[in-house]
Amino acid sequence: MSRLITLLTDFGVASTYPAQMKGVILGRCSTARIVDLSHEVPRHNVRTAAFMLASAAGAFPEGTIHVAVVDPQVGTARRVLAAEVAGQTFLAPDNGLLTVVMREGFGRRANAAPVRVVSVENHELFRTEVSSTFHGRDIFAPVAAALAGGTSLDELGPPADSIRQFDVPAPERAGETWRGEVLYVDPFGNLVTNIPGAPLAEAGPSGVTVLVAGAVVRGLSRAYGDVPAGRLLAYIGSAGLLEVAVNRQSAASRLGAGIGTPVRVEANAS
Amino acid sequence: MSRLITLLTDFGVASTYPAQMKGVILGRCSTARIVDLSHEVPRHNVRTAAFMLASAAGAFPEGTIHVAVVDPQVGTARRVLAAEVAGQTFLAPDNGLLTVVMREGFGRRANAAPVRVVSVENHELFRTEVSSTFHGRDIFAPVAAALAGGTSLDELGPPADSIRQFDVPAPERAGETWRGEVLYVDPFGNLVTNIPGAPLAEAGPSGVTVLVAGAVVRGLSRAYGDVPAGRLLAYIGSAGLLEVAVNRQSAASRLGAGIGTPVRVEANAS
Amino acid sequence: MSRLITLLTDFGVASTYPAQMKGVILGRCSTARIVDLSHEVPRHNVRTAAFMLASAAGAFPEGTIHVAVVDPQVGTARRVLAAEVAGQTFLAPDNGLLTVVMREGFGRRANAAPVRVVSVENHELFRTEVSSTFHGRDIFAPVAAALAGGTSLDELGPPADSIRQFDVPAPERAGETWRGEVLYVDPFGNLVTNIPGAPLAEAGPSGVTVLVAGAVVRGLSRAYGDVPAGRLLAYIGSAGLLEVAVNRQSAASRLGAGIGTPVRVEANAS
Repeated sequence: MSRLITLLTDFGVASTYPAQMKGVILGRCSTARIVDLSHEVPRHNVRTAAFMLASAAGAFPEGTIHVAVVDPQVGTARRVLAAEVAGQTFLAPDNGLLTVVMREGFGRRANAAPVRVVSVENHELFRTEVSSTFHGRDIFAPVAAALAGGTSLDELGPPADSIRQFDVPAPERAGETWRGEVLYVDPFGNLVTNIPGAPLAEAGPSGVTVLVAGAVVRGLSRAYGDVPAGRLLAYIGSAGLLEVAVNRQSAASRLGAGIGTPVRVEANAS
Repeated sequence: MSRLITLLTDFGVASTYPAQMKGVILGRCSTARIVDLSHEVPRHNVRTAAFMLASAAGAFPEGTIHVAVVDPQVGTARRVLAAEVAGQTFLAPDNGLLTVVMREGFGRRANAAPVRVVSVENHELFRTEVSSTFHGRDIFAPVAAALAGGTSLDELGPPADSIRQFDVPAPERAGETWRGEVLYVDPFGNLVTNIPGAPLAEAGPSGVTVLVAGAVVRGLSRAYGDVPAGRLLAYIGSAGLLEVAVNRQSAASRLGAGIGTPVRVEANAS
Repeated sequence: MSRLITLLTDFGVASTYPAQMKGVILGRCSTARIVDLSHEVPRHNVRTAAFMLASAAGAFPEGTIHVAVVDPQVGTARRVLAAEVAGQTFLAPDNGLLTVVMREGFGRRANAAPVRVVSVENHELFRTEVSSTFHGRDIFAPVAAALAGGTSLDELGPPADSIRQFDVPAPERAGETWRGEVLYVDPFGNLVTNIPGAPLAEAGPSGVTVLVAGAVVRGLSRAYGDVPAGRLLAYIGSAGLLEVAVNRQSAASRLGAGIGTPVRVEANAS
């Protein structure tokens, strides 16, 4: 049983580009098992992809190879990276896509081992003819197949220094007040913030007040169905972060909120 | 070869939620084969999901495990059910999602054996930490993996009584007149009704007249291409039910029809 | 390890129709590995499907079975074809869908062997009950499973003559001037033309000028990122054809261009 490979791109499910990557992988590693993380990353949006990658990786077993291709600089001098983080391997262009995985780890996994990163430069692993516009098919896919077949990180290229990373917006805490922002809006319109859930849980469900986009949400709920349909709620989401939603509707639409919208939380143990 | 697992959700293909379910399944049952039924069930629409599940299940082999997560009450006291129907296993929240499968069976399969249903309560099969908002990943996925690996229904929990079901709109027959409604609109805009095709077929193709949304369709066609492009037609669809379509266009748009639109049929053997 | 099967349809990812095809395939060939090429071919658009099929097939290994169902004449007298082209097998309705694969081959693969085509007429391979509206499930899927399991082309039916093909728009060359058109618009809004890249490359990057929809693009770029965001560029795309794009935006929207838009190229070695 070879290793699991996931694909995350902004190619769109309508296109055959994800399939072309799979054709190359399966042509070189016929036993590969491939899972689509998503092919609907907002076009060219490296930050959203970085969050999606980190939040999804935690559900996958050790040894999984994640291939993330949101790559507006494809064909230019930007490097391709391979990183080992907490027992999984990540392939991505050097454009910040690995920022969240490398900084925060993922899931509830403690990242004890140091992160190893190499620059993928071993052309013998690539397809014979490499286009300048579709490295997903011509570089990422065959390298993923090689990894799945047992090639080690060291065989891909030399250690990579000075990885490109963007600033992950960090929440600020002053006493019992947290200031953060919306990191991600999921397809339900739920707002995933950068404020960690664990310390809020200590304040107790009724001790937390969330202020976002002019709305005030008092108390933490456990489930969407804890409030009537159409009502706002705040809760610790499945990624361990504070989220704001509207039961059965879109909080993003209701509040006119999106990535970057400021969020304030008052957590007073009651 | 382990059992086949299908996934039906309203999570959206853009999200990584379906992938997270697959990561958990494959982490626990590396030989599982997973097929997406659809992740684009209209959000929170349990009735449409129930119809989609029943109409798709008939194409799958005995032993298939169908996991259906359209679950607006996730995290509340609603139960999770596992049902054995006609040689297949269904996992779904207790919100009516299994109504059509349990009442009508599926495909052309006679459901000889009585339906067995248990309430899934064996926490040892769940993920260690269960979120209150993503049971698809934390409960449904690991339980499906357990079933695929050989766990029996009895090990999941006690028999479940008083399953929640909605009223499946039943067609009414008075002599040669049938009154029913649109059950489902497929992505082509074809209208799938609740009127069974077999008795209509007896009247002969020219003996059937269908009235829907102010339009009158005379005669049953066999294929879309039997009428000119842009013309309405009625036919016995691939689910064995009367359908109304427009060749190469959307009948739903043309007629302003949707789920619940009344349909009348006159079937006079000619 | 059985052969790889791909699916290309216009059924839409929202529907369960692709899944029903997979259920039938896996029920008959449990070791089949299935890859979705796309289920979002523009509805009933056989020409676009023909291009998508040819451009994707080159990424798949020898022996792959491609199943393409864009089939507005389903259930009428149109035939179902199976073709062997350059070591791969293609199943499609006889409506022109195989035009590009059979004429041009695919990828960089030389199609040395003559193309073999049979008319699929062996009803014993079909599902027991064949609907008139869903041959994807009832004919194409079981025949693909049979091929994956070792059934030969000859067992499917007799050789097929006079295959339906549409006119593939051929570029015209007069001296250093090429006249062609847009063949396909990918989901990024990039315009894929029918003008081959290899002869343009000989003129050297700065010797090529592309005129399309009133815009003039001077020189060939290698990568999107070679020009500033929002700027037009021309380049040899991953299918080996001339393409026109806007870095990080949609060229189709910017230029109001689409399939069939004329393209002129002046290639003067500089």
